[in-house]
Amino acid sequence: MNADLRLGEEVMDRVDELARFSASFEGLTRLYLSPQHRAAVDLVAEWMTEAGMPASVDAVGNVVGRYEGQEPGLPALLLGSHLDSVRNGGKYDGTLGVLAAIACVKRLEGRRLPFAIEVFGFGDEEGVRFPCALTGSSAVAGTLERSHFDVSDADGVVLSDALIEFGGDPDKFESVARNRADVLGYIEVHIEQGPVLENEGIPVGVVTSIAGASRFAVSVTGSSGHAGTVPMSMREDALAAAAEVVLDVERRCRGQDHLVGTVGQMNVEKGAPNVIPGTAHFSIDIRSPDDEVRKTAIDDIGRSIEAIGSRRRVRFDIRRTYEYPSCLCSAGFIEHLEAAVAHFGIKPRQISSGAGHDAMVLGELTRVGMLFVRCKGGISHAPEESISVQDVDTACRVLNSFVDALATAGET
Amino acid sequence: MNADLRLGEEVMDRVDELARFSASFEGLTRLYLSPQHRAAVDLVAEWMTEAGMPASVDAVGNVVGRYEGQEPGLPALLLGSHLDSVRNGGKYDGTLGVLAAIACVKRLEGRRLPFAIEVFGFGDEEGVRFPCALTGSSAVAGTLERSHFDVSDADGVVLSDALIEFGGDPDKFESVARNRADVLGYIEVHIEQGPVLENEGIPVGVVTSIAGASRFAVSVTGSSGHAGTVPMSMREDALAAAAEVVLDVERRCRGQDHLVGTVGQMNVEKGAPNVIPGTAHFSIDIRSPDDEVRKTAIDDIGRSIEAIGSRRRVRFDIRRTYEYPSCLCSAGFIEHLEAAVAHFGIKPRQISSGAGHDAMVLGELTRVGMLFVRCKGGISHAPEESISVQDVDTACRVLNSFVDALATAGET
Repeated sequence: MNADLRLGEEVMDRVDELARFSASFEGLTRLYLSPQHRAAVDLVAEWMTEAGMPASVDAVGNVVGRYEGQEPGLPALLLGSHLDSVRNGGKYDGTLGVLAAIACVKRLEGRRLPFAIEVFGFGDEEGVRFPCALTGSSAVAGTLERSHFDVSDADGVVLSDALIEFGGDPDKFESVARNRADVLGYIEVHIEQGPVLENEGIPVGVVTSIAGASRFAVSVTGSSGHAGTVPMSMREDALAAAAEVVLDVERRCRGQDHLVGTVGQMNVEKGAPNVIPGTAHFSIDIRSPDDEVRKTAIDDIGRSIEAIGSRRRVRFDIRRTYEYPSCLCSAGFIEHLEAAVAHFGIKPRQISSGAGHDAMVLGELTRVGMLFVRCKGGISHAPEESISVQDVDTACRVLNSFVDALATAGET
Repeated sequence: MNADLRLGEEVMDRVDELARFSASFEGLTRLYLSPQHRAAVDLVAEWMTEAGMPASVDAVGNVVGRYEGQEPGLPALLLGSHLDSVRNGGKYDGTLGVLAAIACVKRLEGRRLPFAIEVFGFGDEEGVRFPCALTGSSAVAGTLERSHFDVSDADGVVLSDALIEFGGDPDKFESVARNRADVLGYIEVHIEQGPVLENEGIPVGVVTSIAGASRFAVSVTGSSGHAGTVPMSMREDALAAAAEVVLDVERRCRGQDHLVGTVGQMNVEKGAPNVIPGTAHFSIDIRSPDDEVRKTAIDDIGRSIEAIGSRRRVRFDIRRTYEYPSCLCSAGFIEHLEAAVAHFGIKPRQISSGAGHDAMVLGELTRVGMLFVRCKGGISHAPEESISVQDVDTACRVLNSFVDALATAGET
């Protein structure tokens, strides 16, 4: 489609350069506030500066560059994504959006727009090192509390100490928050992390909403016993009860569009082949772009769990560990993005995001939009994560076109 | 029932003495060939000697005392059980049978019978340290092969090395085997490890058979994926497939008498709340006193697993990790034990053992019998394992009476 792929090639080269900053050989491991994260942030700050944006690292570890508009201090369009990764993940998840945003500013070559642009490389989108997530974007959105920094990682390192060692300052997290009046909106380019675009042969998709999500940690307690001596009729098997819930979550979510449910963890406490499970622990994750659909499903599953518990004489303890409402993308942004996509001869494809993103957090501060890039096999969070230089080039051009249209429309 | 509980009291005191030899504070942890096992073996050898039996530790770590009959070298009635325990288990499982046997010889006070008695404290009945089980009794039954000693524990210690350090000799394991002609039979006293006797208010039960058991390690491989982005209809969820098997094992075994089935372990590889399980591992344990019933159930479950695999597009890999046929107790021993039980005014209660025991291994060498002792709540393999001094006293008297009756009947 585009014979000249320079935009895409530069972004892909830089993705590879950043992928060297990894704690693992196979796959990318760049955890929040790790030395690898710091190295990535520093290199990204250099690239921002080189693209014409004075850059700095803020109090919570985000790297941010600001490209002023036609006069200093104008409200800013925020662009970006995150620089941290899961353990043994892929190199495009997050990083792509930061580098596409820098490329977008770079190609302006000093041309000033009727608004400023701020490019963010957020920290802690993934939430794998500490028992929290989305720290960087939440600080910008102004939704953090001081206690957020009191949690510890698996080695007992407290988030606030790790942040100080990184060069941040937990006491100044409030200074990171933006005022609504200073912000025009937020646009994020991200890999799809799902199979839809690939299945339909479309390079990019325009996100209409980000699913709301609820996550639960469930423990079920029955009675342990000898696998050979307790008759089937006298058992209170915790794993069998948990298995019923796994299938109930699946059945309930299969039965409805725009709803997914997953039991991703399952563990029998002191499990042994010859012992009837006395206690089992598992997770439940429920998502939908429609909060009502999600809540109704959770209520239904809760009632099923209650019925399973009383029928099987086991006790369920359910703790909510994560809750984020769905986020609707700005209708205006969707329209502009679709126009930009169509401009390159691509049929606009609206898509709902089942994964969470920094954009949903920024949605509490300002209007947001997202552009998804097709990825191979729908795979993410794995070393096999893969995208094509052509698709990246297309995404960069769409983003540029979107920014230009916004400037022309005089949206300030 | 018995005002004089001296027999039971001495056995209970000695159980407590041996319980000091534990690697854990809570519960008893006396693993095969551990220092705690060695200390227990040495003290038991002292008690054997004191009861009139020259005692020694054999090449595989069994402690054995021999009480000669009316002339040296007569065939022996074997008595005993095991001295090793599970991790954090109870103090009566195994130990009770060894100490009841010593008490039985002790009260003969030198009186000679028309047969010898050999008392065994077997090692490695439980099979928790090394990936093998019933080592001690298998050596006596003559069913071991040299390769048995090549396995390693979780720390990488090879069984044969551990045995040498313990004071045994893996190269001499064949010397431990008994000739059929030298053995009259084997009798084992053991806690029930189930709730039947307690439910019916009966102190001891006469075992008619020991269930055969098959154990499997199952892996199921589907496709991992993002919990938010892969539609329900496109999933190949390994845990959901495993959950179906858990419920199928339960359903199949519930539907038939004299059959139990258990999934005791379940683990999602790299499980995370927001990741669709790609691989899950679990165990299946199937037992029945009737080998045909067990085999038919295994065939049925295998067919179900095949159907689940093809319907869900996941692959099951099934590995058999344990297989022991059922063991019928000697009709003559059952009759003698029932008479002994009735002699003390207790209604004889026949009971089938769902748990495996050294007796089933000895069953390959000679006729066997077992006497079960009621235990609290049916609990075993846990610190809460508990039996009463009255019941132990009764069990000792029944054993004595059985041995006397055997002597009177002139069974040699």
